[in-house]
Amino acid sequence: MTASSASRQKTTPKLTQSPTWKALKDERAAWKNIHLRDLFAHDKKRNARYSLALDDADETFLLDYSKNLIRPQTLKLLLKLAKEAKVEALRDAMFSGEKINHTEGRAVLHTALRGKTPVQVDGYDVMPDIGAVLERMRVFADRVRTGKWKGYSGKPISDVVNIGIGGSDLGPAMACLALKPYGGNIRAHFVSNVDPSQLVDTLEDLDPATTLFIVASKTFTTQETLLNAQAARAWFLDTAKDPQQVAKHFVAVSTNAEAVAAFGIDTANMFGFWDWVGGRYSLWSAIGLPIALYIGMDAFEELLAGGHDLDTHFKEAPLDQNMPVLMALIGLWYTNFWDAQAYAVLPYEQRLARFPAYLQQLDMESSGKGITRDGKPVTCATGPVLFGEPGTNGQHAFYQLIHQGTALIPCDFIAGRESHNDVNGQHAVLLSNFLAQTEALMRGKTLLEVQKELTAEGRKPAEIKALAPHKVFPGNRPTNSLLYRRLTPRTLGRLIALYEHKVFVQGVLWNVNSYDQWGVELGKQLAKVILPELHGGKPGNHDSSTLGLIQRILGD
Amino acid sequence: MTASSASRQKTTPKLTQSPTWKALKDERAAWKNIHLRDLFAHDKKRNARYSLALDDADETFLLDYSKNLIRPQTLKLLLKLAKEAKVEALRDAMFSGEKINHTEGRAVLHTALRGKTPVQVDGYDVMPDIGAVLERMRVFADRVRTGKWKGYSGKPISDVVNIGIGGSDLGPAMACLALKPYGGNIRAHFVSNVDPSQLVDTLEDLDPATTLFIVASKTFTTQETLLNAQAARAWFLDTAKDPQQVAKHFVAVSTNAEAVAAFGIDTANMFGFWDWVGGRYSLWSAIGLPIALYIGMDAFEELLAGGHDLDTHFKEAPLDQNMPVLMALIGLWYTNFWDAQAYAVLPYEQRLARFPAYLQQLDMESSGKGITRDGKPVTCATGPVLFGEPGTNGQHAFYQLIHQGTALIPCDFIAGRESHNDVNGQHAVLLSNFLAQTEALMRGKTLLEVQKELTAEGRKPAEIKALAPHKVFPGNRPTNSLLYRRLTPRTLGRLIALYEHKVFVQGVLWNVNSYDQWGVELGKQLAKVILPELHGGKPGNHDSSTLGLIQRILGD
Repeated sequence: MTASSASRQKTTPKLTQSPTWKALKDERAAWKNIHLRDLFAHDKKRNARYSLALDDADETFLLDYSKNLIRPQTLKLLLKLAKEAKVEALRDAMFSGEKINHTEGRAVLHTALRGKTPVQVDGYDVMPDIGAVLERMRVFADRVRTGKWKGYSGKPISDVVNIGIGGSDLGPAMACLALKPYGGNIRAHFVSNVDPSQLVDTLEDLDPATTLFIVASKTFTTQETLLNAQAARAWFLDTAKDPQQVAKHFVAVSTNAEAVAAFGIDTANMFGFWDWVGGRYSLWSAIGLPIALYIGMDAFEELLAGGHDLDTHFKEAPLDQNMPVLMALIGLWYTNFWDAQAYAVLPYEQRLARFPAYLQQLDMESSGKGITRDGKPVTCATGPVLFGEPGTNGQHAFYQLIHQGTALIPCDFIAGRESHNDVNGQHAVLLSNFLAQTEALMRGKTLLEVQKELTAEGRKPAEIKALAPHKVFPGNRPTNSLLYRRLTPRTLGRLIALYEHKVFVQGVLWNVNSYDQWGVELGKQLAKVILPELHGGKPGNHDSSTLGLIQRILGD
Repeated sequence: MTASSASRQKTTPKLTQSPTWKALKDERAAWKNIHLRDLFAHDKKRNARYSLALDDADETFLLDYSKNLIRPQTLKLLLKLAKEAKVEALRDAMFSGEKINHTEGRAVLHTALRGKTPVQVDGYDVMPDIGAVLERMRVFADRVRTGKWKGYSGKPISDVVNIGIGGSDLGPAMACLALKPYGGNIRAHFVSNVDPSQLVDTLEDLDPATTLFIVASKTFTTQETLLNAQAARAWFLDTAKDPQQVAKHFVAVSTNAEAVAAFGIDTANMFGFWDWVGGRYSLWSAIGLPIALYIGMDAFEELLAGGHDLDTHFKEAPLDQNMPVLMALIGLWYTNFWDAQAYAVLPYEQRLARFPAYLQQLDMESSGKGITRDGKPVTCATGPVLFGEPGTNGQHAFYQLIHQGTALIPCDFIAGRESHNDVNGQHAVLLSNFLAQTEALMRGKTLLEVQKELTAEGRKPAEIKALAPHKVFPGNRPTNSLLYRRLTPRTLGRLIALYEHKVFVQGVLWNVNSYDQWGVELGKQLAKVILPELHGGKPGNHDSSTLGLIQRILGD
């Protein structure tokens, strides 16, 4: 336990017993008769009051949070909560390399990976090591991208297959799709699931002579990753025959030199990272190697710069002008005072299709906790379920529930002012939908408005009476709008870091450790017990359901 | 309003005021001190009692629902609720072609698309028309698949691009991925989002001379689909030049012959469907054309047969032996008595990656309603948020929250006994994870167990005290296990129809119309108002947030 977290325990009362929490309960009760439509009607400057921009010469990065169920006194109380939870002190502790991941005794320094100033961990400045790995990544990426790196038959690399899972997969896969316009002549593929079909389907059209595999596993023991890597190696050797050639087609992102060498990889092509880089925060590290190979190292460094932009904002902006702080507070407001168990992230850009899946790990693995930092059960709800699909697709799928369902689903709408490749005026249509949805969710449509519309359509009174209730939209459904100029590497870096810091702030407020993930251990442990039983071993000590399923699988 | 729904109103008391509902509330209160671990310990046959199989010679289709928070009296009450809601009568009304989609005055007959017996709508048997379209699909698919259908330059078709959105996209896209092992020599692609990037990225590697577009829009007016179709047509003509050739590369799934012909499509290649096929139930109709082109018409008819298997089961099995009925009741139990707002569908097969996204539309668009069939506000929660990612990927992403978070997230675990292409023994590893997760979620790990483990690892008492609470798993977290033999077209048909009927039963219980989607209208309406403003038109009457965002987009 670190000094700052210990001192915090002494001085911070239990969150849900604080007067501020109680005042927020009262504030919530007051909201029963308030409609956003009226708030907007009575305050023409509401959007200016509740918008924040991170602007420079050619970028737009705007958060409009005015379509939320907040008013001045709401925000005042939420900000008070943040002050009382010592968000600023904990934030500074994170940036300075304190071991805030106390259950694993680790610092949390993904910000250093995109940083510019020295940071000490255990009295040792981490920046030179970071710089050295970045430099090695640059040299390697350049060699592969320019064709200087040759495969066993002398041909250059055309396809990179990243084998990794969780944080070693979701970030790079999301980013490569998002940054397709920056892609060069190398295609990027991702294999994660231990289901052999994913590897088989990926390799189907690839040529062993021009394929490079990145095996991404810090310990080089991750079950899924190692099995897929072995299968990929076998596929490669099926054609290449000579195990000596493995080194020309496999590299590793790992710190386990012995295992990497035993696999046949030249440890000169092993890229390391550190225990202060959590899996779900690792795309900024050597785990980002497939991104660097795909978009080039200059663009990768632009991504880092975007993350750094948000770090600076998070560190320097006062709480009431701080994007991640406000997003976190508003999220907590819905989770804890409006009983919202889910929230939607809705990027309108198709290339951000995997952004929600990426955020699922970032948010749900960080905030899906039931125990406070000091080992007590939490006394309120913590992390919500995060879900989402790209813009207009979601409109034709699940938006019905967001508009007319019974649960409150707060949403983040995300779009770019410009497209990399507008066709047929479609980008404006995309944006008209992006805008219309937040407007519709906020305003809704009243019974009177529906009745007028149906009357104007010439419907009969009986028909109107029967149909009208179904066409009413309650409105008052909260959304954030995030608007950027264009989906550049820098913008993507900003977006990711914005959510990282949002998650950090919520962890501080709920007083949970956002950086461990003990909840993934039990399943792994039990799977190890079951595996030999699927190979005909003696049935173990399971419940009748698990036993029955095993028998059914074995065909007994 | 149909006769049966009218009579139902008279005789059915408000759901939440019924004695059964109240008894379920008491039953829920009794569950405060019950742990599944103990129920399994005290009843070695719990799995047999709470499992159902749909078996024949070479298939396995098993639902094990024993790891749910149920005991005999729970199920008894839930089944009583189903009886009282007249699930059987409404089910029969659906199958017989009654207009149960009363707000749109339509029958709901996706079951007829895979059926074998005459069904009358407005005194007219729909089966001959269905058969005729299936026959035309067969002829067309055979011509394309065998290369008899030629493009403008005389080459056969290598790539099919389906342009559609919502139900005209999610089902075919999901099914083509799921049934990859049945794919032939034609590749299938899907474009849905109005974001032009999706079309641009899809067409990048395609050859206009060998690409066939399916434009799927019943009315041929869906904004996203028509814009993408026009852009695709322009891309095609850029190479082919002659508009007469459009007919060789574009076909339609639509009923608007005039618009289809105006686009340049030969109406002989227009495949129709009917107003009793809802978008999210349409993959069984001509909307399934890309599936038929991809896997062939014989395999497509196997998919239909799988759906029909579940129809027969749903119609014939008594309620307490009826898979979709039990899944619906258990789902309602969590939604309404355990306040679960989200549920997870977790297919372990990578090729089912898009099954959750498909189910999002099926479930959330059907059950995301706030108004009963008779136009009154519902008095309980309705449809939950559905989310999911394939098996072991999810384990490394969001399972943390399911294991140790504060909300109860019921989960469906789905896996096949066999793989189409096992490699390296990985399928057994996949299954060991599938099994271990439901076991872990059910059992959990107690503080005592954690303390023992940490002691055995040689940890110091102080360390154990600090760490142990974080490593405790509460368990008692409910799951269904769905096990099938292999992901064949027939199995996929069964899976889809199982969820369709589950959603149907929940709609009956909540007394909502599962077949309309008025909640998608307002956004469309407002988008039409905003679009001209993005092209420099006079700013309309919007709230300050929407106005501000429009100005920002325009760069003012």
